[in-house]
Amino acid sequence: MAATSAASAAGGPVADLVARARDGQARAVARLISLVEDGSPLLREVTAALSPYAGRAHVVGITGAPGVGKSTSTSALVAALRAEGRRVGVLAVDPSSPFSGGALLGDRVRMQEHALDPGVFIRSMASRGHLGGLASATPQAIRVLDAAGCDVVLVETVGVGQSEVEVAGAADTTLVLLAPGMGDGVQAAKAGILEIGDVFVVNKADREGVEATARELRHMISLGSGPRSGPADEPWSPPVLRTVAARGEGIDEVVDAVARHHAWLVRTGELDRRRSARAAGEVEAIAFGMLRERVGDLRGDTRLDALAARVLAGELDPYAAADQLVAGITVRS
Amino acid sequence: MAATSAASAAGGPVADLVARARDGQARAVARLISLVEDGSPLLREVTAALSPYAGRAHVVGITGAPGVGKSTSTSALVAALRAEGRRVGVLAVDPSSPFSGGALLGDRVRMQEHALDPGVFIRSMASRGHLGGLASATPQAIRVLDAAGCDVVLVETVGVGQSEVEVAGAADTTLVLLAPGMGDGVQAAKAGILEIGDVFVVNKADREGVEATARELRHMISLGSGPRSGPADEPWSPPVLRTVAARGEGIDEVVDAVARHHAWLVRTGELDRRRSARAAGEVEAIAFGMLRERVGDLRGDTRLDALAARVLAGELDPYAAADQLVAGITVRS
Repeated sequence: MAATSAASAAGGPVADLVARARDGQARAVARLISLVEDGSPLLREVTAALSPYAGRAHVVGITGAPGVGKSTSTSALVAALRAEGRRVGVLAVDPSSPFSGGALLGDRVRMQEHALDPGVFIRSMASRGHLGGLASATPQAIRVLDAAGCDVVLVETVGVGQSEVEVAGAADTTLVLLAPGMGDGVQAAKAGILEIGDVFVVNKADREGVEATARELRHMISLGSGPRSGPADEPWSPPVLRTVAARGEGIDEVVDAVARHHAWLVRTGELDRRRSARAAGEVEAIAFGMLRERVGDLRGDTRLDALAARVLAGELDPYAAADQLVAGITVRS
Repeated sequence: MAATSAASAAGGPVADLVARARDGQARAVARLISLVEDGSPLLREVTAALSPYAGRAHVVGITGAPGVGKSTSTSALVAALRAEGRRVGVLAVDPSSPFSGGALLGDRVRMQEHALDPGVFIRSMASRGHLGGLASATPQAIRVLDAAGCDVVLVETVGVGQSEVEVAGAADTTLVLLAPGMGDGVQAAKAGILEIGDVFVVNKADREGVEATARELRHMISLGSGPRSGPADEPWSPPVLRTVAARGEGIDEVVDAVARHHAWLVRTGELDRRRSARAAGEVEAIAFGMLRERVGDLRGDTRLDALAARVLAGELDPYAAADQLVAGITVRS
């Protein structure tokens, strides 16, 4: 009986989708990403079905202020990686947009040249109405592309805000893009992206001010080695490269730097360390979600409404009200 | 003894700060906002001390895409409200910036004209490194300005992303700003701000295209009445106004519309309904924080590291690992 039921589960719609995704079928990949993005009831089953095939892709985050040419650079990187025969997944993450799917993101037209290449999967993701939703959906979507056989997954974020930093946390290697005169070192430091960059790229290097930007950036990097710098005996020094992505100039050097960083991650054990921390974070988040479900939806509790009314009347402060709400709940570890 | 200790608590540093804030001392107000923004250990005490004095201010959210003139409009609204002799608090919330305090936000210079007015408190808030942090800090900061005796608290958000929508959820009345040719109705619908707008303002109304933008906006509004439209027998129809904020044109009409909306909120009971929902949300969030603390910091649990290693090795999927992590925890309501 158990064997039959296992076989039936293995032949279920999720297993079928995963098999087709691993077979390179773009529609199955898209469907799986939609399932994880929407927080489908099948999420758990999807995650379990994908997990055995995940962990092989090199996940590369691409971040930088609007206007530095992230979309153009991503497209150029895809072309260079495809020329090496590597399968590439692209996730374009826009925390400021409530829309997913790509059609509404104008910049995505730059990716159209790769739309018909069966070795490239492209997907846009947006916040879909809940803060923190992207932070959990992004690793899940990466897992889909990873299990589908992508050698490299590029995760492009739209801005340089805190949510971008969190999304970049899902990457093995983070590329930080700047452009002369707009994203100088001080701006980068302010935005908190100096700490997360493994490779820095000054794009639009045919413009005036590229020297100054690169110099300042190297100076800022030299001032502090972030937590991502690795073991003391073999630290990683983030290179500062120059590109003109619109003409494909300097892109091979970026691909090369990304590959060198990956080799360094593997050699020093940093890859495992980073991925362990990410896995622990994901397990913890799921565990807290489970605990929350066990407590039940407090919002439907009539006690909550009564307590809120007393807060509104000034009889109770919100903390005192919360005390009363959780007083009847036992949590024991 | 109990009386002595209560008296001593009443005369403690927090009570003293609150007394000075209620006395109109800007530095005490600023210090209290810093305490709630930083998630100080005193947060609970601060909240309790402020609560009896909160709930009097009319909280007005101001949102719209970058470039529509939010900062200029906010400054013009402050001037108009001050001309009526009302005390005004301004919170400028930037979810995309890791910095608070205002000095680093260039646009804030437009507020300088009010900086020396003792009837105006101005404060910038930013994300300070954690997603969702603003969503909880904003209501707390509003409570400080409210308790300090502000008649109106203006909460200006920087963009139109999901976090702005959440921040706007802390307002009684939400102003949505657009400008001709940049934020037309379709764009507003995409950004999810049509549903949250109580008053729409087409700023820069001296520019071409203002007619088309206003018409399209009215059309989009007529298509659907959002959840904020109130009771069926006395619904609120969001007005579409025009301003040239840089010259102060149309600002009195905006102040008037905001006052009419407030009167409508009070008359229909919508104000209580919205504030009850907000209070319930705040109590629930604090309650979950307490539960989370009781469970302890799972991240420090060696079991979590071991489970993460098994996830990384592909032996366990993240959900199965979370199952094992929470297996030993009892939650009983």
